[in-house]
Amino acid sequence: MHILIIGAAGMLGRKLATAIVSGALPATQLTLADVLVPPAPRSDIPTDVIALNLTETGAAQRLIAARPDIIYHLAAIVSAEAEADFARGYAINLDATRALFDAIRLTPGYRPRVIFASSIAVFGAPLPDVIPDDFHLTPRSSYGTQKAMAEMLLADYTRRGFLDGMALRLPTICIRSGAPNKAASSFFSGILREPLNGLPAILPVRDTLRHWFASPRAATGFFIHAARLDTARLNGQTALNMPGLSATVADQIAALRTHAGNDAVALIRHAPDDAIIRIVESWPRAFDTVRATALGFTAETSFDQILQVYREDDLPS
Amino acid sequence: MHILIIGAAGMLGRKLATAIVSGALPATQLTLADVLVPPAPRSDIPTDVIALNLTETGAAQRLIAARPDIIYHLAAIVSAEAEADFARGYAINLDATRALFDAIRLTPGYRPRVIFASSIAVFGAPLPDVIPDDFHLTPRSSYGTQKAMAEMLLADYTRRGFLDGMALRLPTICIRSGAPNKAASSFFSGILREPLNGLPAILPVRDTLRHWFASPRAATGFFIHAARLDTARLNGQTALNMPGLSATVADQIAALRTHAGNDAVALIRHAPDDAIIRIVESWPRAFDTVRATALGFTAETSFDQILQVYREDDLPS
Repeated sequence: MHILIIGAAGMLGRKLATAIVSGALPATQLTLADVLVPPAPRSDIPTDVIALNLTETGAAQRLIAARPDIIYHLAAIVSAEAEADFARGYAINLDATRALFDAIRLTPGYRPRVIFASSIAVFGAPLPDVIPDDFHLTPRSSYGTQKAMAEMLLADYTRRGFLDGMALRLPTICIRSGAPNKAASSFFSGILREPLNGLPAILPVRDTLRHWFASPRAATGFFIHAARLDTARLNGQTALNMPGLSATVADQIAALRTHAGNDAVALIRHAPDDAIIRIVESWPRAFDTVRATALGFTAETSFDQILQVYREDDLPS
Repeated sequence: MHILIIGAAGMLGRKLATAIVSGALPATQLTLADVLVPPAPRSDIPTDVIALNLTETGAAQRLIAARPDIIYHLAAIVSAEAEADFARGYAINLDATRALFDAIRLTPGYRPRVIFASSIAVFGAPLPDVIPDDFHLTPRSSYGTQKAMAEMLLADYTRRGFLDGMALRLPTICIRSGAPNKAASSFFSGILREPLNGLPAILPVRDTLRHWFASPRAATGFFIHAARLDTARLNGQTALNMPGLSATVADQIAALRTHAGNDAVALIRHAPDDAIIRIVESWPRAFDTVRATALGFTAETSFDQILQVYREDDLPS
C-alpha cells in the first residue's frame, strides 16, 4: 500500500507519518510532500520526501504519478491567513485541492482513496448549542467557505467515480505541540502548553467560553480509521463531523490544575482581546456526532485525557 | 440605474428584460449579454446587446466595464449537460461565475448588487417531505454541486464587501415556453404546453410524483423583487429558497382538463422512462419558504393560476 501525505510538514502530517511507519496501516511505500521538505520518520518503509507548491502547474500530476493508493490531503493555509490574503486562501485551499482532484480524474483507471482534512469552520453562526450531523453549512470565514467548497467537490468527484473520497471535519486540535500559529484558536492550546512548559500564557476570552476539541492523537486516529473504512457505508455523504470533547476554558484550566498544580495555572494571564472574542464566540460549542461514532471514529472524553496525551506524546522530558 | 443581464437569451432572461423595460425597475440603461446575441425588447431605454463567452479571459471585465448597478447572472448550462460534460459544467457554472465575482472584486470602489439564479438542485436525497429554509445541501448532481459552490462564493464575496449578493433557488419553472430542453425536468412543462398547443406529449413518470413549481412570471417577479430588497435583512445568509407550488403530476393534469378539456388530456401518453424516474424521484417535493415569504417573495398557489399565466403570457393566439 502506497500512502501519500500532502501537508506532511505540519503537526498532524508528521504525527500521521509516524503512526503509519509504526504499523497503523500496512504501508509498503510512503510519499511525504509539503512546500518545504518534510521530515521523514525513521523506518524501513521506502519513503520519498518532496518539496513542491501544489498551486503550481503540474505539481498535482507529479504527486500522483506513482499512483498512491491512499492520499491524505492536509495542506492548507489557516483561517487568519485565508482572511488576510483573500486570493492566496482560494488558490491554496480551493484551487490546489481541485487541481489534485482533477489530476486524479484525468488519470485513466486510477481511483485512490482521498482523505481530506476539513474543519468545523464550515459551520457559522447562528448555531444551536449542539450541532447535529445534518446541520447546514453557513461559513462565516473565507477559510470555512473554501473548506466547504472543497468538501462539495470531493462529494461530486466521488459520486462520479473519479476517486473514493472522505472529508473529516476536525475539531480544534488541542494541545498543539510547538509554537503558536496564526489561527484565532491558537490560545486554546497555548493556555495549557505554555504553563506545562513553565512559560506564561495569555487567555484572550472568558473562561465560560465553550468549544469543541480533540487531541492530535485522536486526529491521527481519525485519519488512520478513515483509510480502513468501508466507504459504501457513507451513502454518498462523504463529509463527516468528527467526534470530540465539548469543554469550557474553565474545564481546560481545571485539568491543568490537576496535572500541574496552582503554579502552572498562575502562569495564565487574562487579557481580553475583542477581535479574538468576536471570532471565537461565533464558533461551534458542541456536536452530536452520531454518524462518525457509528462508523467507529473515537476521541477523548475529558481534558484530563487530552493533557495526558500531550504528556505522553509531546511534552519535552 | 444600469442593469446587466447575463444569460439574456434564455427564457427567463428575455422575460426579465421585457419586465424591466415595461417599468418594473427604474432602468436608465440595459445591457443584455449571452453566448449568442440576445434579443432586445422594444424600448426607449438605451440597450446594448453583447455576444460573448463568459469563460474567456477578459469577458467578465468587459461586461462590468461600465459598472452596472445591478447584475443578474442567469447564465448556466443545465443539469443533464453538466452531467454529460463534466469539465464544461464546472467551467461555465462555477469558473465563469467566479471570474465575474473576481472582476467585480478587483474593480476599486465598485460594489454592485449581484442576483444569482440558483436552483433547488442544491438539495439531494434523502429529503424530508417539506424542506425547511435551513436544510443542508447535499447535491446529487454536478449541476447542483456547481450551484451550491457558487452560492458559497457569493456569500463569502458579500461578507467581504466585494459585492452585494443574493442567490435565488428557483423552483422548477413551469410552463416553460418554446421547445423542450435537455433538462430531466423538461416533461413537467411539456405535458401541459404541448396539449395546450394541440400537440402530443409524453409523461415519463407516474402521476403521483410530487414536485415544486413556479411560473416564468413568478420567477421574473423574484428577480425584480430581489433588486429592490434591503439586503441587510438577509443577515449574511444570501441564499434563499424561493416560494412555489407543491403539486403532483395529477394536479397538473387536472388543471389542464379544466383549461382545455379531455381532448387535451388525451394527448398525453404515459411512457415510463426509468432513467428519468430515477433522477426526478430524488428531487424536492415541497418547501416551507418562511424566509423568502417574510421578505415579500410570492408565487402561484394553484396549477390553474400557472396555466392562466401561460395563456396570458405565452400561448400563441
